[in-house]
Amino acid sequence: MSSKPFALTPGEPAGIGPDLCLLLAREQQAQPIIAIANCALLAQRAQLLGLNIQLISVTPDAFPEQPAPAGSQYVWDTPLGAPVTAGQLNPANAAYVLETLTRAGQGCMDGHFAGMITAPVHKGVINEGGVSFSGHTEFLAELTNTEQVVMMLATHGLRVALVTTHLPLKDVADAITPERLSRVTRILHNDLRDKFGISQPKILVCGLNPHAGEGGHLGHEEIDVIEPTLEQLRAEGINLIGPLPADTLFTPKHLEHCDAVLAMYHDQGLPVLKFKGFGAAVNITLGLPIIRTSVDHGTALDLAGSGNIDTGSLQVALQNAFAMAASQA
Amino acid sequence: MSSKPFALTPGEPAGIGPDLCLLLAREQQAQPIIAIANCALLAQRAQLLGLNIQLISVTPDAFPEQPAPAGSQYVWDTPLGAPVTAGQLNPANAAYVLETLTRAGQGCMDGHFAGMITAPVHKGVINEGGVSFSGHTEFLAELTNTEQVVMMLATHGLRVALVTTHLPLKDVADAITPERLSRVTRILHNDLRDKFGISQPKILVCGLNPHAGEGGHLGHEEIDVIEPTLEQLRAEGINLIGPLPADTLFTPKHLEHCDAVLAMYHDQGLPVLKFKGFGAAVNITLGLPIIRTSVDHGTALDLAGSGNIDTGSLQVALQNAFAMAASQA
Repeated sequence: MSSKPFALTPGEPAGIGPDLCLLLAREQQAQPIIAIANCALLAQRAQLLGLNIQLISVTPDAFPEQPAPAGSQYVWDTPLGAPVTAGQLNPANAAYVLETLTRAGQGCMDGHFAGMITAPVHKGVINEGGVSFSGHTEFLAELTNTEQVVMMLATHGLRVALVTTHLPLKDVADAITPERLSRVTRILHNDLRDKFGISQPKILVCGLNPHAGEGGHLGHEEIDVIEPTLEQLRAEGINLIGPLPADTLFTPKHLEHCDAVLAMYHDQGLPVLKFKGFGAAVNITLGLPIIRTSVDHGTALDLAGSGNIDTGSLQVALQNAFAMAASQA
Repeated sequence: MSSKPFALTPGEPAGIGPDLCLLLAREQQAQPIIAIANCALLAQRAQLLGLNIQLISVTPDAFPEQPAPAGSQYVWDTPLGAPVTAGQLNPANAAYVLETLTRAGQGCMDGHFAGMITAPVHKGVINEGGVSFSGHTEFLAELTNTEQVVMMLATHGLRVALVTTHLPLKDVADAITPERLSRVTRILHNDLRDKFGISQPKILVCGLNPHAGEGGHLGHEEIDVIEPTLEQLRAEGINLIGPLPADTLFTPKHLEHCDAVLAMYHDQGLPVLKFKGFGAAVNITLGLPIIRTSVDHGTALDLAGSGNIDTGSLQVALQNAFAMAASQA
């Protein structure tokens, strides 16, 4: 196992990210975790939650190699732009949020961290703060000079990667090009092998159209684009089954013996995954030169400071990051 | 409860429909069921399966009002076009298949049957037989002079109806018009009330785009079409929640208190339903003046005569038809 610590970014300071980080610290974790956040904010939130968590300030010149004891949390203190009130967004903290991400991402690139786990940010308030920001994934792709990343959601027993992500539905069909499908599939295959330690990954591929086009009766993209592209990728040695109708693919008979599903678009793949993995799903960015996993939920501003939240998704995000680092070691 | 019998059409004679019908007859059913099929075919298939089922020939002038005893099956004998070999399609039996559907559908219209339950047909071989046929649903819509029908899949604890069904994905966005959305929603609401006995149905509605458009950032159909249409339908007294992102809608928190989900298209709604209801899902046609439910699987030609099949979906189809008839009575 890696002895490097993992970076945890609690994200939006007015949301539930700080709460999750503190709730987690009640137990000792399997690996050292360093929260990249403001110490005073965490202390204040702990008080609000009635949690007695010891915050241990650490810096990059001497990161710990052992997990913090139960009831304590390593923190790389990061200055806020303005004091935080739980539940109240403030554009003055946009730069703070981005600085925590930069520290985590750059720390991974520099070999200080084994990987990074992110809690939710609020895109709107960062943009209001005067910084153009379209999401964690895009930010980290730019930071690490990565051209193509792939979004994969995972829960116990199911991984779903997407060929297209946040596109209007009407633009999806045109976006399924041989180039994009090839790039995404190769990244998925390579990362399953290299980051998940699966020597011969088996990937199930959805069709684009209902019934995977039913031989051309319900759309031609399977015949014109998907099948020839999969054929070419198979010739490279990638184990691909499909294109299959999405509503028969997501059944035990097919899922039992696969390592991941490749869905063509967001709402084809994610409803099943979130249904199956409710409260315990994780978002993993493939294609980056670093390990990055994330919770799959939002900032839940209304619940910040309430204590009425579930660390399930964060725990799965940590487990996945730990396992990925171990596979690479 | 209704004392009228239910019509069961085993569909494609070379497929597993006859097998399902015979396997079902091993037990006494809660309501009288009349198979509309060829007697000799059923006798031959029973022999192949090693089942001792007594076939009781009945005709419309004296349909039974009590369930057949365990080990027997009522049959309205219907002449084949050609002898049947299990697993081998024959266009000469296209007219036979359609005749069984006509007898069932017309029998429902004439008040002889309380409802009809269909096993799978094979569209291709019917068309090869010289009859233009695009599916059970369309056939029954024409037979009953119904302009708009709605496809709904159901399993224990979840019902999903579709605004669009068998369309290429690229055509879906344009097909979500105020007119279609209104018609489909009204049919869903009315049938939940009138055929399922739900006095105030609560319907969750999916957005079209990922994240339900995220306030217009990921598509405008929610703002331009869906929201105003739902608003108008609410003014008519229909209880509608949404549009919601499909990947948050299909989670227990939302599903627990709803009677049905309305998905915008096939692969947005059906993968979750079939994942949840694997082997026990049923297809229900709403909007017809008759009750019609169907298994959700295909003809499985390779399994005909093998005995290696599961009656789960047929049982749920029967249960739904019985319950719908009881709600109407």
